[in-house]
Amino acid sequence: MTERGLFVTLEGGEGCGKSTQMRLLMERLRREGYTVTGNVEPGGTRIGKQIRAILLGAENLELSSPAELLLFFASRAQAVEQLIHPALEAGHVVVSDRFTDSSFAYQGVARGLGEPWIRDLEAIACGGLKPALTLCLDIDVEAGLARARARNLESTGKETRLDDESLAFHRKVREAYHLLMAREPERVRRIDAAPGIETVAQEIWNQLMPFLDAGSVLR
Amino acid sequence: MTERGLFVTLEGGEGCGKSTQMRLLMERLRREGYTVTGNVEPGGTRIGKQIRAILLGAENLELSSPAELLLFFASRAQAVEQLIHPALEAGHVVVSDRFTDSSFAYQGVARGLGEPWIRDLEAIACGGLKPALTLCLDIDVEAGLARARARNLESTGKETRLDDESLAFHRKVREAYHLLMAREPERVRRIDAAPGIETVAQEIWNQLMPFLDAGSVLR
Repeated sequence: MTERGLFVTLEGGEGCGKSTQMRLLMERLRREGYTVTGNVEPGGTRIGKQIRAILLGAENLELSSPAELLLFFASRAQAVEQLIHPALEAGHVVVSDRFTDSSFAYQGVARGLGEPWIRDLEAIACGGLKPALTLCLDIDVEAGLARARARNLESTGKETRLDDESLAFHRKVREAYHLLMAREPERVRRIDAAPGIETVAQEIWNQLMPFLDAGSVLR
Repeated sequence: MTERGLFVTLEGGEGCGKSTQMRLLMERLRREGYTVTGNVEPGGTRIGKQIRAILLGAENLELSSPAELLLFFASRAQAVEQLIHPALEAGHVVVSDRFTDSSFAYQGVARGLGEPWIRDLEAIACGGLKPALTLCLDIDVEAGLARARARNLESTGKETRLDDESLAFHRKVREAYHLLMAREPERVRRIDAAPGIETVAQEIWNQLMPFLDAGSVLR
């Protein structure tokens, strides 16, 4: 869609350290003099936050899978038009915490809604916009979920139970990301998320650098 | 999808008297002994009401057209799964104030998003569910908008301005409904909405009766 800027997404399963790496990446890009715009899905815009509140509302247990999928893409459509496209046109580096690949992995594959729906909705919501680079933080499912559980215990004081069903679900999510890496090796890069935070951050930077050098990004 | 119950929708442009007729129709069906479930779009379910609040939020002026379309279908997907399908399976008459035809007329045609998006979203949100009968309340655009303006003036004390752009928009909505009537004459029936409330209600009843007699609806 646009010839300017650089659109980068971070993807990965539970407990992969995505949010921490997103923050570190944004900080480093700014330190190095790039103009950076961040997005998080769902919820990167004012309207997206209202949609996020429905998706994450603890009382909304009856939310149907198709309705959930449509809400994720509604938030994305708003972010594409209001936030991402204008920032790319202005030559920014746009970093998004999750994008269409998350819908593919979680709803399309793990929830079993199928890839055709994801592609139809991508066409409607994103108008052909794809990330130039997707950094996929990959970690063993049990290790990731143990991290996520420890984090939840720390922030809420509540132990979350892990059943076989959710383990199978998160294994499918990981397999879906592996499928994308195999299908689009130029765009979707595996980042080993097992090492320490600084090591992972450096690997992300190493993968990103050639794209920063090649793109017409503002500095 | 279902062999039981009867799914009826009411459609029409601004000021066609749809809400009044919806209420009268539900009352008459109940008086005649039918088990009736009502739906309104957007907002027929608890989650739908949260989506409706985003769509109608006066402060949400920046809502993009694709995001708006996706939100309408998210509300519909939730109503189909949670409300409409179970009611039809139980043999109810389900009456919905607007359904997919509204998205076709308003977003697909009048906003110019195109029919293919509507059909893709219909497949995702409705899983093939179509009304058996659609009663389309048809009224001259100027007359309908004059009615809607008078109603707004009464309820808010504010005079709403009508510009050429919105006149052209509502003409396209009406043309879209006429297209559906021509395309699917068995399902989409024109109801002349110009006469008095009781005359229109009787015409709606006359059109509905053969469907009530033929269907396996609960009485």
